[in-house]
Amino acid sequence: MFGVTILGNNSALPAYDRHPTAQIVTLNDQLFLIDCGEGTQMQLTRYRIRRSKISHIFISHLHGDHYFGLPGLLTSFSLMNREQDLHLHAPAPLQQILELQFATADTRFSYKLHFHALGEPGTIIEDEKFTVETFKMFHRIDCWGFVIREKKKPRKIDGERIAGAGIPAVFYERLKDGEDYITKSGERILNASVTIPNTPPKSYVFCGDTIYNESVCNHIQNATLLYHESTFLKDQAERAASRFHTTTIQAANIARLANANRLLIGHFSSKYEALEPFLTETAAIFPDTQLAIEGVTYIIR
Amino acid sequence: MFGVTILGNNSALPAYDRHPTAQIVTLNDQLFLIDCGEGTQMQLTRYRIRRSKISHIFISHLHGDHYFGLPGLLTSFSLMNREQDLHLHAPAPLQQILELQFATADTRFSYKLHFHALGEPGTIIEDEKFTVETFKMFHRIDCWGFVIREKKKPRKIDGERIAGAGIPAVFYERLKDGEDYITKSGERILNASVTIPNTPPKSYVFCGDTIYNESVCNHIQNATLLYHESTFLKDQAERAASRFHTTTIQAANIARLANANRLLIGHFSSKYEALEPFLTETAAIFPDTQLAIEGVTYIIR
Repeated sequence: MFGVTILGNNSALPAYDRHPTAQIVTLNDQLFLIDCGEGTQMQLTRYRIRRSKISHIFISHLHGDHYFGLPGLLTSFSLMNREQDLHLHAPAPLQQILELQFATADTRFSYKLHFHALGEPGTIIEDEKFTVETFKMFHRIDCWGFVIREKKKPRKIDGERIAGAGIPAVFYERLKDGEDYITKSGERILNASVTIPNTPPKSYVFCGDTIYNESVCNHIQNATLLYHESTFLKDQAERAASRFHTTTIQAANIARLANANRLLIGHFSSKYEALEPFLTETAAIFPDTQLAIEGVTYIIR
Repeated sequence: MFGVTILGNNSALPAYDRHPTAQIVTLNDQLFLIDCGEGTQMQLTRYRIRRSKISHIFISHLHGDHYFGLPGLLTSFSLMNREQDLHLHAPAPLQQILELQFATADTRFSYKLHFHALGEPGTIIEDEKFTVETFKMFHRIDCWGFVIREKKKPRKIDGERIAGAGIPAVFYERLKDGEDYITKSGERILNASVTIPNTPPKSYVFCGDTIYNESVCNHIQNATLLYHESTFLKDQAERAASRFHTTTIQAANIARLANANRLLIGHFSSKYEALEPFLTETAAIFPDTQLAIEGVTYIIR
């Protein structure tokens, strides 16, 4: 399973029971938390997320609505006697803030917290099955986007066609990697004749707070699911720009230019109670758009 | 009106939709916030508290469940364009933590925040109509309790008995202050013969996180309403002590020794879903006990 569950879809000022930004990405049996606004730990409980499965936390930037829930979550992990390591990827100044808070509280941790400062665009996690890349957003303070990308999956053996081809089973792993097989008599059996392609690797892109800037598209081409902030409706373009935020139309344009498969919009301003206009305006330009709704899981497929 | 509204009644780990510590004290037309656990700003919205009326915030100590909601609340005040000054009374290290967070976020405040470090027991606010005193609690880190006390109210003129006494109206204010009146012929009219006592001044005492320690009673005698933490039931006295917390029985004993009029208990451990046993155990020793329940306002009378 590869999917994203929305825990908060509102901008800075909580309103209409909408919460500040937080998302859980599920990838196989691991969970990643992207941003951690105030109340995230309560939202994890509300939506019955198994928080012990969270292995990595990514913080896009250090505006409070994206991390004020983090110190509480980290403390609660310890109160729940978490044992496994936790990796935190965030702008560098967060380390000092947390250390100061935890030293003042005399907090004793039951687990090891690894702090990884975001400093250079590029790959920050290289796992057997996925990678995480980061890139710069364009906000009032240092801000990062994230790409969580499955690795290319091995080809699948075609059971029918391989029968009788005389290829020893010990060679199957190399077939899956795309190699041809050379028989003892020197004959070449083409890989494509006995294997079929696996499902293409999928990707989730998180574009948090940002002013409209097309150069971001260089880093996020062909996302299976692109999350992009859309704080304001289209008639507020000036206001959006002055606050380093994006409108519906602008989010749709980024999705189009980046050739995204699907678009998810969120970070709605507290000025709006109704969210339907966000969908209408965005989908007019990029039809495969959905609103980020709290508690909903969007499967990446 | 003098009362306290509970916004959070749970100990550190949020559970059963119970929140970490936060209380609103209403005194006439001012609101005071005591402690500000994560999610307090959402609780203020939920219970329709007029947050613009909050003039003073008191933070008992720097464990996260007592202040992790504060940076978000202070930021939101600004997003809502608050203009009036705000006074924050808290242990000194909080100032550096907040300054670091706000500098990192490049937060611009619409209002002036005055930080008052808690450092010496005694009176920290002396207003025309009330005082606030602070005293030391006994917790794992520096921790403070608070007494909010009405000032003695002026006596009331007894309309029936003053008629025909020949006291000029211009002297009435001095009568209210308790003075006798001397007539032109030198006759003394005793104050008590023309005035009646006003209602006695009331007080609210907040005893946050603490191990059982009777010496606290020196500072909190005769409270109209005493809030005291009661994290554990009576059979967990050892556990309570090891974590610098209090049991039901111990809270009741403090109320008895301090001659409190009424007792309110809270800061319930996440280990308990049902709260009734807290009431049963405490009221067995101190009958005028109530459970602190979120959303409920307890009138101080």
